[in-house]
Amino acid sequence: MNVVEIRGPGMDRIAQATRPEVRPLPGQVLLRMKSASLNFKDIMMAKGVIPLQYPRIPLSDGVGVVAEVGEGVTRVKVGDRVCPIFFLDWIAGPYDPKTYTVDLGGAVDGVLRESMTISAQSIVKVPAYLSDEEAATLPCAGVTAWSALTTHCSVHPGQTVLIEGTGGVSIFALQFARLMGAETIVLSSSDEKLERARALGAHHIVNYQQSPQWGERVLQLTGGRGADVVVEVGGANTFDQAITALAAGGHICQVGLLGGLDARMPVMTFMRKAAHVHGIAVGSRENFEGLMRALELHRVEPVIDRRFAFDDAARAFEHLGSQSHFGKVTIQIG
Amino acid sequence: MNVVEIRGPGMDRIAQATRPEVRPLPGQVLLRMKSASLNFKDIMMAKGVIPLQYPRIPLSDGVGVVAEVGEGVTRVKVGDRVCPIFFLDWIAGPYDPKTYTVDLGGAVDGVLRESMTISAQSIVKVPAYLSDEEAATLPCAGVTAWSALTTHCSVHPGQTVLIEGTGGVSIFALQFARLMGAETIVLSSSDEKLERARALGAHHIVNYQQSPQWGERVLQLTGGRGADVVVEVGGANTFDQAITALAAGGHICQVGLLGGLDARMPVMTFMRKAAHVHGIAVGSRENFEGLMRALELHRVEPVIDRRFAFDDAARAFEHLGSQSHFGKVTIQIG
Amino acid sequence: MNVVEIRGPGMDRIAQATRPEVRPLPGQVLLRMKSASLNFKDIMMAKGVIPLQYPRIPLSDGVGVVAEVGEGVTRVKVGDRVCPIFFLDWIAGPYDPKTYTVDLGGAVDGVLRESMTISAQSIVKVPAYLSDEEAATLPCAGVTAWSALTTHCSVHPGQTVLIEGTGGVSIFALQFARLMGAETIVLSSSDEKLERARALGAHHIVNYQQSPQWGERVLQLTGGRGADVVVEVGGANTFDQAITALAAGGHICQVGLLGGLDARMPVMTFMRKAAHVHGIAVGSRENFEGLMRALELHRVEPVIDRRFAFDDAARAFEHLGSQSHFGKVTIQIG
Amino acid sequence: MNVVEIRGPGMDRIAQATRPEVRPLPGQVLLRMKSASLNFKDIMMAKGVIPLQYPRIPLSDGVGVVAEVGEGVTRVKVGDRVCPIFFLDWIAGPYDPKTYTVDLGGAVDGVLRESMTISAQSIVKVPAYLSDEEAATLPCAGVTAWSALTTHCSVHPGQTVLIEGTGGVSIFALQFARLMGAETIVLSSSDEKLERARALGAHHIVNYQQSPQWGERVLQLTGGRGADVVVEVGGANTFDQAITALAAGGHICQVGLLGGLDARMPVMTFMRKAAHVHGIAVGSRENFEGLMRALELHRVEPVIDRRFAFDDAARAFEHLGSQSHFGKVTIQIG
Repeated sequence: MNVVEIRGPGMDRIAQATRPEVRPLPGQVLLRMKSASLNFKDIMMAKGVIPLQYPRIPLSDGVGVVAEVGEGVTRVKVGDRVCPIFFLDWIAGPYDPKTYTVDLGGAVDGVLRESMTISAQSIVKVPAYLSDEEAATLPCAGVTAWSALTTHCSVHPGQTVLIEGTGGVSIFALQFARLMGAETIVLSSSDEKLERARALGAHHIVNYQQSPQWGERVLQLTGGRGADVVVEVGGANTFDQAITALAAGGHICQVGLLGGLDARMPVMTFMRKAAHVHGIAVGSRENFEGLMRALELHRVEPVIDRRFAFDDAARAFEHLGSQSHFGKVTIQIG
Repeated sequence: MNVVEIRGPGMDRIAQATRPEVRPLPGQVLLRMKSASLNFKDIMMAKGVIPLQYPRIPLSDGVGVVAEVGEGVTRVKVGDRVCPIFFLDWIAGPYDPKTYTVDLGGAVDGVLRESMTISAQSIVKVPAYLSDEEAATLPCAGVTAWSALTTHCSVHPGQTVLIEGTGGVSIFALQFARLMGAETIVLSSSDEKLERARALGAHHIVNYQQSPQWGERVLQLTGGRGADVVVEVGGANTFDQAITALAAGGHICQVGLLGGLDARMPVMTFMRKAAHVHGIAVGSRENFEGLMRALELHRVEPVIDRRFAFDDAARAFEHLGSQSHFGKVTIQIG
Repeated sequence: MNVVEIRGPGMDRIAQATRPEVRPLPGQVLLRMKSASLNFKDIMMAKGVIPLQYPRIPLSDGVGVVAEVGEGVTRVKVGDRVCPIFFLDWIAGPYDPKTYTVDLGGAVDGVLRESMTISAQSIVKVPAYLSDEEAATLPCAGVTAWSALTTHCSVHPGQTVLIEGTGGVSIFALQFARLMGAETIVLSSSDEKLERARALGAHHIVNYQQSPQWGERVLQLTGGRGADVVVEVGGANTFDQAITALAAGGHICQVGLLGGLDARMPVMTFMRKAAHVHGIAVGSRENFEGLMRALELHRVEPVIDRRFAFDDAARAFEHLGSQSHFGKVTIQIG
Repeated sequence: MNVVEIRGPGMDRIAQATRPEVRPLPGQVLLRMKSASLNFKDIMMAKGVIPLQYPRIPLSDGVGVVAEVGEGVTRVKVGDRVCPIFFLDWIAGPYDPKTYTVDLGGAVDGVLRESMTISAQSIVKVPAYLSDEEAATLPCAGVTAWSALTTHCSVHPGQTVLIEGTGGVSIFALQFARLMGAETIVLSSSDEKLERARALGAHHIVNYQQSPQWGERVLQLTGGRGADVVVEVGGANTFDQAITALAAGGHICQVGLLGGLDARMPVMTFMRKAAHVHGIAVGSRENFEGLMRALELHRVEPVIDRRFAFDDAARAFEHLGSQSHFGKVTIQIG
C-alpha cells in the first residue's frame, strides 16, 4: 500500500513510499483510509520542532472504512466508517501523559496511508451525514474544542465564550459554543476572516491588530463582565490579554501555543478574578463519542479550508504552515 | 394597598384585604407589583397541605418596578423592573435549608399585593424583552428548571433530557434543554399537550397513558442508551420508571412530587447504572441571574397558559389546581 | 493447575477441578495466585441469585505474583506482586456498564485458582507492607469504599460519615473516612462488633436493633446537622432511615443491597434536604492506584475476619453467607 | 474606644486613636474584640502598595465576644465568641469580586479596635478549645488554606501537597493537608524553619536556596509523579518551578504573590501535564464554618510566631514585614 512518510526534519523530507499491509490480530480491525486532515502540531513535527523517529507516517486525524475485523471484535463490523482516536489508549477519564503515551502520527505511525490496522478499542463510529473529509477533521481539532468546552469549562447558555483565531480548533469551538447557547466573540487579524466567523454565528468580532488591547475590548462588549471561557490558542502572545478579558471565576482553556512557549502570568489580576486555567490535551474516546452524538443531532458541518490530493500531501503541509487558513485542511486518500 | 390573603386552610379562604404600605429601610427597596404567577406548592399551601401562619399573602413569583430605594442601595435604581428571589437570603452556592429559611409566600408574605418592600439583595433585574407577566413566571419554576439542568446535571449538546409533564417547570426545562443543544423527550397523558410540546421543540413525545412502561419506550427512542437527565416532577408515580429510562451514569433531578410522597427505589438497577439522584430546591440568586443572561441572549418566551385579573385570584388557584394547564398561570396586578 | 469452580446454582455445587495453565499472549502476564477474598456478590452468584455460565471459577478479589510477561509488557515485571482489577477494561473515568462488561469471577473466570493469565493493563501493583491475604481483600471491597468516598462524595475533614454495618466495604469505609479526617458513626446490630469498630476509630456507635429509628439518633449525635455522607449497604432495609440521617446537601453512596432490592424513597424529605444519591459500581484502575498510594503512605491494615485453606473454599462461602463476619474472609491459595 | 489607624501610606503612619462605640442596628451585633492577627496584605496596605482610604482601622483577622445583639438576631447570643469573616457579604458559593466587594480592614474599617458592630450574618462561632489568639489567626490565612485544599483541589489521602514557605497560609496548609491524609512537602530557605515544619508533620523538606531547581527535587521525592497540589504563595519567583513540580492533572492553588506580580507561564509543559491553576480569594462563610468543624474535631493548634500588645501594634507590622516569621503574628486587644 502507499503511504506518506516524514523522513527527517524539514518540510522537504515528506515523501511517498510503499509498505506492506498488515492483517488484523485478535481485537484489531483493518481500515481502508478515505481522508485525513492536518493540525498545527503536524507542521511542528514535519519541521522537526517536535522530534520524531524517522521514517514516520504523519497525521493523527483521518477516517476509514472497516475492511476486516480480527477475532473477538464486537464494537464495529465490516463496512462501518470510523475515526481513529488521538491517544490510542485513552478511553475515558482525565488525561494522564504517563498512561496515554501513544499519540497517532507521533509515537506511532499515523493515518496518511491507504490502510492501517488498529485496535477496535481505538476507533469511533462516524455519523452518516458527515462526508469523509468532514469526518477526517474531527479527532484532534474537533475533540480538543469539544473537551475544552464540555469537560473543564462547562459552558451554560448565556455565558460568553471568547475564541482566539480562526484555525481548526477555533472554528470548532465557535460552532460548539453556539450549540451550547453561548454568546461568542471571535478574534482575528483579518476582517475577512472575522466576517466569515460572523456568518458562522459569532455574536461579536474583534480585529486584534486594530485592538491590540483586546482584553479591554472584550470587557466592553460584555458590559464589563468579561468572558466566562477563553479558548486560548496563542500562548505567549495572548495569555495576559486573555486574563484581562476574563470574567470573575472564568476559565481559560489552554489548547495551543501558536504564539510561543513562555507566557506572562499576571498573578494579582488572576487571583482577584479567582480565575482558572486548564491545560487541554485533546480528549478521550468518551469525549469523542459525546461529540459525535452532538454532531449527529445538530448536523454541524465542519469548515473545510482547502482539500489536497494524496499525491499533493507535502503542499497541504505548506499551506497549513502559512497560517492563512480558515478551518481545516484535508487530504483525500481513498 | 390591596393584597390577597390566605386566611386559613382551604381554597375558599383566599380573599382580598388592605394593608398599609411600608417604606423601605436602609438597604431595602419598595416595589410596585405588576404581575405574579402560581406554582403547584401554592395550591398545597392554599389547601393547607403545606402549613402556613394565617393570614398569609401568597405567591413567591412576581415582578415589580422599583418605586423607592432605601439608603445605601446601589444594586438597582428607581424605575428598574425586578423579580424577587424565592429564598430571600440565598445568594449563591448550594442550598442549605438551615441557612435559607425564608421562602417568599411561605415563611413570609408573598408577592400577591400592590406593593412590597424587600432587601435590595433579594431581587434580580428583568431583561427588557420580557413582558411583565412573562417575567412573573420565572422565580420558582424558571429557576428550578434552570438550576436542575445547569448546576447538578450539566447537560451537553447531544445528550438526552427526559421531561415529565407539561406544567411550568417542565415547559421551562424543555425550552432550556433546547438552548443547551440537548435531545428532548416529553411525557404527557394528553396528545394535544404533546403536540404543543413538539411545537416548542420536543424531539420525541410519549403518551404515558398509552405507554405506562414509558421507561422502556425512552430506551427505544434513544437506541438503548436511555436519558442522560430526567427532570422528575412526579415523585411516587414516576420515580422507578425514571430509573428504567435513565442512561448509565445518568442523573435524575427531583424537582417535584405531584404524584405522591413515597417513591419506589429499585436499588439494583440504580447501582448497575451508576446513576445519580439530586434533590432540587429552586435555586440561588446567582442561578437566577445566569438564567436572565440566557433568556436575554436567546429571547426565550415563557409559555403562559392563562392569565387572571387581581380580583379573580382565587379562580387562578382553582385553575392551576385542576392540573389542566400547559405552562404558567399568571395574575395581573398593576 | 488446580481451580475451584461453581458448577451450578447452589452452595453445594462448589468443587475443585484442574485446568491447563495458559501462556501469556502479547500484552498479557501469567500470575501465580497467592490469596483471594470473598464478597457478598460471590455468595449471590454461588446461590444462583446472580446467574452465571457454568462452570465458573469464582471470586474477583485476589493477589498473585507475575511469573511470566508476554511480549511488549512494560507496566510490570516478573516477581511483581499485583491485584487484578474488578472490571478488566475499566481504566479510568466514570463507570459505564455498556463499556465495562467484563467483571472478574462473573462474566469471566475469577481468581480462585493457582494461576491465571490476564492483560497487563488489568492489574495494579501491591505495596510491600501488605501481606498477601491483606492485598487480596482490596479489589472489590476496598476499591468500592474508596471510590465512594473520593469520587462521588469528596469527604472533607470535620464532615460526618455514617457507615452501615461491619462487613468488608463498611470496615474499609471506616478506615478510609478516618484517613480523610472525617467524624465517623458506625451502625451494627451487635454491641461486640460496635466495640471493635470503636477500636478501629469510630467516633460514635449505634446499635440499630436498640435504635430502629437510627436516622434520628444520627441527627442527635451530630447536633442536628446529620451525616454528610452515608455509605449505604442495606438497600431496602435502610434507605429511608439513611435519608433521615442525612445532612442538608448530603450524599448517599449506594454500595450494596444486603437488605433487599426495593427501597422506599421519601421524595419530600429528599428534596428539602437537596440531597444526592449515587450508585457505586466498585471503581476503576485509577481509583485502585489512588487507593494503593493512600494505603502505602498510611500503612492501613485491612481487617481479616477469618482465613480458609484452598481446600476449604466451600466453607469460606458458607461462613460469609452467615453474615456473622467483621471485615474480610480470605482463602489462601499459594 | 481605642482603635489603631493607618493614617497614610508608610509604616510610620500607624497610630492609636479613639472613636465612639456604635450600637448594633437590627440584624447586627456588638463585639468586644479580644485578639487580632496580621497577614502580608496588611503590610502592603500599611506601606501604601495596596491603596486605602485614610484613616483606616487595619486587619481583617480577629476574634471578639458578642456584647449586645440587635433586633432579630438569632445566629448568635451575648457571650458567644466569634470571628468576623473576611468578605462581609460572601456567605457561600464561588468568589465574585463584583458581588463581594467589602473586605474587612480594606474597603471598611477592620478589627484592630476594642469593639466593633457587624452584621450577625458576617460572623462565625469559635470552638471552645481555641484560645483567643489562636482563633484570631483563622479568618484570612486559615480560610485561604482551607478553601484552597477543599474547594478547588479536593485532596485525597495519599496525594502529595507541596507547600511553599512557612508563613501563615503555608503552615495552615501543612496542618490541613495532614488532616486530609496527604503526603506533604515543605519548601523554605531556612533549615531551621524546615525542621520546625517537619515537627509539624511535613513528610519531606526542601531548602530552595540549596535546590533552586526545586521542581526537579519534588519530582524525585515523589518517584517521578510530582505534586498533586501546590499551594503557591510566591507568584513571580516560584510559578514556573511549581509547574515543573506538578503531577499530571495536578492543581496549583495561587494564594499569594510574595515574590512579585508577573510570573512566567511555561505553556507547553502546562498543557502536556493537563494541569490546572486556580486563583484563590480567601473563602466564604460556609468555607469558614467547614474549617471550624474540622478544627474542633481534630483540635488543631494554629502556630503563633509572636504576639504583640495592642500598644505595640506598629511593631507587629514591622515584624511581619521582615518575613522572618514562622506561622502567625498576633496582637492582643482585650
